[in-house]
Amino acid sequence: MSKETLAKSIRTVADFPIPGILFYDVTTLFKDADCLRELSDTLYEMYKGRGITKVVGIESRGFIMGPILATRLGAGFVPIRKPGKLPAETIEQSYAKEYGEDTIQIHQDALDENDVVLLHDDLLATGGTMKAACALVKKLNPKKVYVNFIIELKELDGTNGFDDDVEVETVLSL
Amino acid sequence: MSKETLAKSIRTVADFPIPGILFYDVTTLFKDADCLRELSDTLYEMYKGRGITKVVGIESRGFIMGPILATRLGAGFVPIRKPGKLPAETIEQSYAKEYGEDTIQIHQDALDENDVVLLHDDLLATGGTMKAACALVKKLNPKKVYVNFIIELKELDGTNGFDDDVEVETVLSL
Repeated sequence: MSKETLAKSIRTVADFPIPGILFYDVTTLFKDADCLRELSDTLYEMYKGRGITKVVGIESRGFIMGPILATRLGAGFVPIRKPGKLPAETIEQSYAKEYGEDTIQIHQDALDENDVVLLHDDLLATGGTMKAACALVKKLNPKKVYVNFIIELKELDGTNGFDDDVEVETVLSL
Repeated sequence: MSKETLAKSIRTVADFPIPGILFYDVTTLFKDADCLRELSDTLYEMYKGRGITKVVGIESRGFIMGPILATRLGAGFVPIRKPGKLPAETIEQSYAKEYGEDTIQIHQDALDENDVVLLHDDLLATGGTMKAACALVKKLNPKKVYVNFIIELKELDGTNGFDDDVEVETVLSL
């Protein structure tokens, strides 16, 4: 299966969640067993051999491929969630959105200085949430942070603005 | 690794999300690579050979093991989400909660009459959400519906009240 076939399996929905936005709906990729397996294999080939110990997924769409990749790599899985969802002691990071501010949290004991972290989410637009996730994860002093998305929206240039020591890679550039 | 070891990897947090509730925090299981692999293997052994074509996970904690199990079984993954999150045409199911009502949605084209469905969530308490999820999925006429949880809280007797044709199984009974 080619990357083109994978890309074609992603449905586009006009004007969601608000007018003017073309939404990339990865649920049509995930529901297709062959596409799900191909994406899983592709991500595994990208990240095997890098010593990754924890895959960190961002709520909620980052929870789908993140855990698959964690088991494939022999790593653990850690969620980053909205405030009030994680039950034990957390640290948090706030960041500016187009309108107002948002906050994400991670359990304080989820990572430590021995971890090599792969942060995952489904789609890179401007990258605001993922940059906040990098800052959040770095507070726990992991050895190294990699960042991965299934889809990157080329025209939004979201790979700009990440720290130089963070490697950002995407499966599909649309 | 024994089921007892898996059970011990689950942290309990008193008085979360409200006073009087003892919360079972599966994030401590998921972050441990050995426990995550063991749980993945256990679920695979439970459900292999049943012809499952789609694993359906309930937002958000059902998104973690659901996709892992889907890839292990060679099935697709389908999310059930809160209203307003799925971009294409949906069907929905409302259900009573302790205070008020809640609604869950699935994409109308996510399943069809050829599918054998495994519904997954992390924890069975009274089972209100999962019973609604069964009713929701059955509107799309799959051949068969299985239901799985990582944890069942014995004292709440949540396995009662499912339709007779739905098989409910859990990994850990606590």
